[in-house]
Amino acid sequence: MTTVQRIFNFSAGPAVLPLPVLEEIQRDLVALPGVGMSILEISHRSGAFEAILTQAESDIRTLAGAPSNYRILFLQGGASLQFSMVPMNFLASSATADYIDAGSWADKAIKEARKVGTVNIAASTKADHYARIPAQSELKLTPGAAYVHMTSNNTIEGTEYKQLPDVGSTPLVSDTSSDMFSRPIDVSRHALIYAGAQKNMGPAGVTVVIIRDDLVGRSAVRKSSLPTMLNYAVHAENNSLYNTPPAFAVYTLGLVMKWLIGLGGLGAVAALNQQKAAKLYAEIDRTGFYRGTARKEDRSLMNVTFRLPTEELEKTFVNESAAAGLDGLKGHRSVGGMRASLYNAFPEAGVDALVAFMKEFERRRG
Amino acid sequence: MTTVQRIFNFSAGPAVLPLPVLEEIQRDLVALPGVGMSILEISHRSGAFEAILTQAESDIRTLAGAPSNYRILFLQGGASLQFSMVPMNFLASSATADYIDAGSWADKAIKEARKVGTVNIAASTKADHYARIPAQSELKLTPGAAYVHMTSNNTIEGTEYKQLPDVGSTPLVSDTSSDMFSRPIDVSRHALIYAGAQKNMGPAGVTVVIIRDDLVGRSAVRKSSLPTMLNYAVHAENNSLYNTPPAFAVYTLGLVMKWLIGLGGLGAVAALNQQKAAKLYAEIDRTGFYRGTARKEDRSLMNVTFRLPTEELEKTFVNESAAAGLDGLKGHRSVGGMRASLYNAFPEAGVDALVAFMKEFERRRG
Repeated sequence: MTTVQRIFNFSAGPAVLPLPVLEEIQRDLVALPGVGMSILEISHRSGAFEAILTQAESDIRTLAGAPSNYRILFLQGGASLQFSMVPMNFLASSATADYIDAGSWADKAIKEARKVGTVNIAASTKADHYARIPAQSELKLTPGAAYVHMTSNNTIEGTEYKQLPDVGSTPLVSDTSSDMFSRPIDVSRHALIYAGAQKNMGPAGVTVVIIRDDLVGRSAVRKSSLPTMLNYAVHAENNSLYNTPPAFAVYTLGLVMKWLIGLGGLGAVAALNQQKAAKLYAEIDRTGFYRGTARKEDRSLMNVTFRLPTEELEKTFVNESAAAGLDGLKGHRSVGGMRASLYNAFPEAGVDALVAFMKEFERRRG
Repeated sequence: MTTVQRIFNFSAGPAVLPLPVLEEIQRDLVALPGVGMSILEISHRSGAFEAILTQAESDIRTLAGAPSNYRILFLQGGASLQFSMVPMNFLASSATADYIDAGSWADKAIKEARKVGTVNIAASTKADHYARIPAQSELKLTPGAAYVHMTSNNTIEGTEYKQLPDVGSTPLVSDTSSDMFSRPIDVSRHALIYAGAQKNMGPAGVTVVIIRDDLVGRSAVRKSSLPTMLNYAVHAENNSLYNTPPAFAVYTLGLVMKWLIGLGGLGAVAALNQQKAAKLYAEIDRTGFYRGTARKEDRSLMNVTFRLPTEELEKTFVNESAAAGLDGLKGHRSVGGMRASLYNAFPEAGVDALVAFMKEFERRRG
């Protein structure tokens, strides 16, 4: 293994991965031990790959504490394709789906659902620039809705649900792309959970879906009319091997799951994430030079968004921080400002380096 | 680099990749030179990744000789999702699409198209167990059809088009998943070409689409009704960056394209493929102990299918060849028999080893 220079990567996703995982991938890249082929080359019908897939599924089940009436699927297309698959599978023409509009990605999910059927916006914080999560009392839920859709963490605006909304007996569907497995998750309160892997779980190219059996059943009814690739029941029946899966991404995700288990599981990783985010928010709140954009009680532990006194200073901050080896701090192009993404694999030393840089920057430019 | 034991991988896909490509991936896995992050971690909006994507696109254009009125896209979901995307984008409710049914994958494409609109089977060799490609004279084309769909190589049955069908001015759509870039391709005779990468082009997880501008235009009309992720025009307008692309798969595919250019391009690689397949077919035809399943003039250079005198002997052949380090020779579960896939990266030494094994096997068991 040659020594390589790595920088602090604050990117919102694809994002930093655990170094031990990268090193294991590197070691075995040309030939998996005992297999004689690269993970990039092995047949998805081989015993070796089926073992990798089954182990990843089992580790996800363990980490999430997913009950046995949930299936774990590995799909493609990211959250963006889930935005369509969810209504195509579950929103009948006679029904209404409730969507909680608490961020830019929820807004995209709503646009796709409207192409399929009737959508009720159960609550929206758009008028507040999505700077907060709607309160339970704000939710206007449709009796007998097909499902309620929410986004657990808003990467762009830096807000995150601290507790799940109460939606009664309506199936709760959650896009957890940006905080999945950064903290414990109560699977049993959801009907369907989906997440693009490229934040906390692995590389881009694989989407994890955790789906309750009754929703698999509802999906099965649509098998003859929906495109086969967009039908959850088909993927469930084929154990995610209906077609060639993104084998390398599943393999890498599996290694990340093992790393999480080694850390002590989701409770342990949540404590680390809490600590990292607390350090950064403390610096943001210290003098008023920096200004957090999200309401304090809704602040995300994954994506810390903040502004500087002027856009000019923000530009300087981005350039100087990048030059100092702190990469990817520029906020999403739709909102501007700064964003520091602190996913599971992001090291605390990187937070310390950013905080030191911020103090120094304020001293020079404040 | 530690020395590793690699075996001969005859898998139909995911399949063998060039060793120099695997070694480059391995070398740079923890941090891309000059970037300080792994390819698995970099933002798809970064300059580093955009350069990788642009180079891969440009190398595909060079290799294929694609004219400037074609766009090159990197999508997800494999050929299986293309089976639906093609009719969803181009088959209007008033129109008919012509499908040439020359193999099991064409049959799957037809099933998906029928969910969307009217399909005419322009020709079928199903009654011949797909052992041949239909002749030009057999084609019953629909005047004014939305498009004609074909499959250039049949992985399961071991047949391959030696020349493109003449479909007049109707747009020709070709699934080239299993022989893309194994030989020169006349892009200008196609309207749309699609290929899952996991045979000759790279790892599983990325799909290459080459699409003519007028079809992008036809797709654009459907933007407001189709799921955004299934709309070719959206991906074309966003240079394959509408959502997070499968970055690692695009990177690896780019390295394979560079390797192909280094070999001398598609003419050079076709000559190598010709030579490899000729050796194996010669052995199959030598005594009659082995029996090729495809009509001789339609034989695939990519997937060589053959039978032995009995199923019992076939089972023994599979087991003994695997034990001898010749992996993946079992035919597709739907047809049985043997299949040796000889994609671009498959070494001629592996063909020699198989031929030697076949001679020896016949001597012992024939």
